[in-house]
Amino acid sequence: MLLRNARIATMQPGMRYGLIDAGALVIRDGRVAWVGQDADLPAEWADTAAEDLDGRLVTPGLIDCHTHIVHGGDRAGEFERRLEGASYQDIARAGGGIASTVRATRKADESDLLAGALRFADALIAEGTSVIEVKSGYGLDVETELRMLRAARAIEAARPVRVRTSFLGAHAVPPEYKDKPDQYIDEVCLPALDAAAAEGLVDAVDGFCEGIAFDSDQIARVFDRAAAHGLPVKLHAEQLSHTGGTALAARYGALSADHVEHATTDDARALADAGSVAVLIPGAFYTLHETQMPPVAAFREVGVAMALASDCNPGSSPLASLLMTLNMGCTLFRLTPAEALAGVTRNAARALGLKDTGVIAPGMRADLAVWDVTQPAELAYRIGFNPLHRRIFQGQA
Amino acid sequence: MLLRNARIATMQPGMRYGLIDAGALVIRDGRVAWVGQDADLPAEWADTAAEDLDGRLVTPGLIDCHTHIVHGGDRAGEFERRLEGASYQDIARAGGGIASTVRATRKADESDLLAGALRFADALIAEGTSVIEVKSGYGLDVETELRMLRAARAIEAARPVRVRTSFLGAHAVPPEYKDKPDQYIDEVCLPALDAAAAEGLVDAVDGFCEGIAFDSDQIARVFDRAAAHGLPVKLHAEQLSHTGGTALAARYGALSADHVEHATTDDARALADAGSVAVLIPGAFYTLHETQMPPVAAFREVGVAMALASDCNPGSSPLASLLMTLNMGCTLFRLTPAEALAGVTRNAARALGLKDTGVIAPGMRADLAVWDVTQPAELAYRIGFNPLHRRIFQGQA
Ligand SMILES: [Zn+2]
Ligand SMILES: [Zn+2]
Repeated sequence: MLLRNARIATMQPGMRYGLIDAGALVIRDGRVAWVGQDADLPAEWADTAAEDLDGRLVTPGLIDCHTHIVHGGDRAGEFERRLEGASYQDIARAGGGIASTVRATRKADESDLLAGALRFADALIAEGTSVIEVKSGYGLDVETELRMLRAARAIEAARPVRVRTSFLGAHAVPPEYKDKPDQYIDEVCLPALDAAAAEGLVDAVDGFCEGIAFDSDQIARVFDRAAAHGLPVKLHAEQLSHTGGTALAARYGALSADHVEHATTDDARALADAGSVAVLIPGAFYTLHETQMPPVAAFREVGVAMALASDCNPGSSPLASLLMTLNMGCTLFRLTPAEALAGVTRNAARALGLKDTGVIAPGMRADLAVWDVTQPAELAYRIGFNPLHRRIFQGQA
Repeated sequence: MLLRNARIATMQPGMRYGLIDAGALVIRDGRVAWVGQDADLPAEWADTAAEDLDGRLVTPGLIDCHTHIVHGGDRAGEFERRLEGASYQDIARAGGGIASTVRATRKADESDLLAGALRFADALIAEGTSVIEVKSGYGLDVETELRMLRAARAIEAARPVRVRTSFLGAHAVPPEYKDKPDQYIDEVCLPALDAAAAEGLVDAVDGFCEGIAFDSDQIARVFDRAAAHGLPVKLHAEQLSHTGGTALAARYGALSADHVEHATTDDARALADAGSVAVLIPGAFYTLHETQMPPVAAFREVGVAMALASDCNPGSSPLASLLMTLNMGCTLFRLTPAEALAGVTRNAARALGLKDTGVIAPGMRADLAVWDVTQPAELAYRIGFNPLHRRIFQGQA
């Protein structure tokens, strides 16, 4: 396949957008075979049937590197009760919050979980997304954690999209282990990880390091087990308070530390030294009315790569749009549109340990998005508006 | 047409959603002929070919009662320059801000303006919108104001949607009248209004009452001329500061006062007495990082009807989604989901002076939206997710 007359944002590292005007792009065997200025197209491709993109913008396919799209139920009722005056305590007493999602997820079979996830996968795909990370973590028992990961893997067979799974057994302490988090780690989380890894269901291991979830020692035990399986780690860190999760993640050479609103300049340096990505989550910041901004200036100064993700989940971020995530990254966190776009392409790939996507260059997967816009900044500027012209996945329209 | 097995949010005044479970709805000649419980369906309709909606939610078609979708150009470049460090002054010196939209709009012919507006109209329609209000106000000369309104009217011929126009000659003082706002009103705004009214292009007359635009006396002169033409008025009021616009609007029996973040309890009482709607605009609040909340509690207390609108415009609210507006109304302004939905149906109709839409009842227009959700609150709860199943416009699928 030969695409001509395109404006190509290659997203090459070290460049703003790596824009090529009047560009051409050759795809062979699902990979980018050549990219450059139309005028420089090598003679060997000159006879290939070409599609004229009419000056449209081409970007790498978008990558959502942090989602919880596999889950049972929704929390719309709780959203409504809170706005009608119920307190968080009222909701918790009525069995709401994450506990209600855990109950609904345990009740759902694999096909229910898949059907629910596909609604969000379809919304993401409709905006040019080619890779979706999906976490477990609403089962909190061995069987349901495995079922969530199987449902996540099944998305790839159901839709033309690539899925990366993260095992998130250390997401919350389930009611049956109330006040016994260590026992939960030993009796459920580690055995579930072993079983999931043995079944090939795990691409990375994640955790939630926070006062309301697990402390650094507990997370470290999960990360040690991940290392024993040869699996990379990532962490929900410093979202609501500073607990040392980011430093811990860096110590383990994590792919990413996610949320990180309360990270310090020292944390930023640790991430930079470890080569870990900071995954910013504006959807949860917005939904939870947070006011502590992530240390974007420190990340820039010490050279931490920043990604952006939807965190699509039924509670703190019922957001199924990477375009809206781009806008929120700029509007709420003051990222530049170029940083935001790198955050859902090049840096999101890095946050997933993927070296074959997120940038348009020879040898990379031909996962692309073609947009009805002239400037890349339009993707972040507009709100609730999808200018996708078409998506190319593994070289297929 | 007979729809059965539906969950119908009739949005009847004085009710939360006016929900009818296991409901049925008869449409004849583009109007709702009957609505009620399936079991109560009168015998005369029992043989009509029925469509089973499978328990899906039906709401009135959504109404966006405040937009600026007719305009030339976009401001993505300015959005980017600001995030890359340019100040508002830098941007203004470079000819940016509203001045750049006025330049682009004056250069655009009617078909350019229509083509631009249709992109946003299509996005709104895809979310179940049946009525779109469209303002002039980026021409600021007689010819371009008329051209904008003609483009707005042309939307109705191009798409199955109803358009209501507002003449907004008093939107800003154009550069050629810098520091001469009174002269602008006399020489451009009032003659443009006369011409537009004579051509049947105006459904209501709007203005921008603010330090950076026009003062109450200038707006009053525009409103007097509107009255002479028998046209209702509305006003952009108390958005950035308190200038008395809301009280003025109430004095003129305005359909609505819009934005109103800085309105007082007295202003709320004046709106209630006048029967004017408060149109809340969370998209601009979000984009401009405003912190002054509209007096929602006062509006509730004195019984001011609240609407919600996208304000879709290239500068302060590049938002083309009423679903996102619903979420922002709840998340940013703490409206309940029921208030938010009333804000884009029943109360939005009132803000446009429309008595035949916004509620599902016999005799009303059969402009409906059918949603793949079970609870109405889901429409406001999710972000960047469109669960529209289908739209019915004037009784047609
Ligand atoms: Zn998460
Ligand atoms: Zn406006």
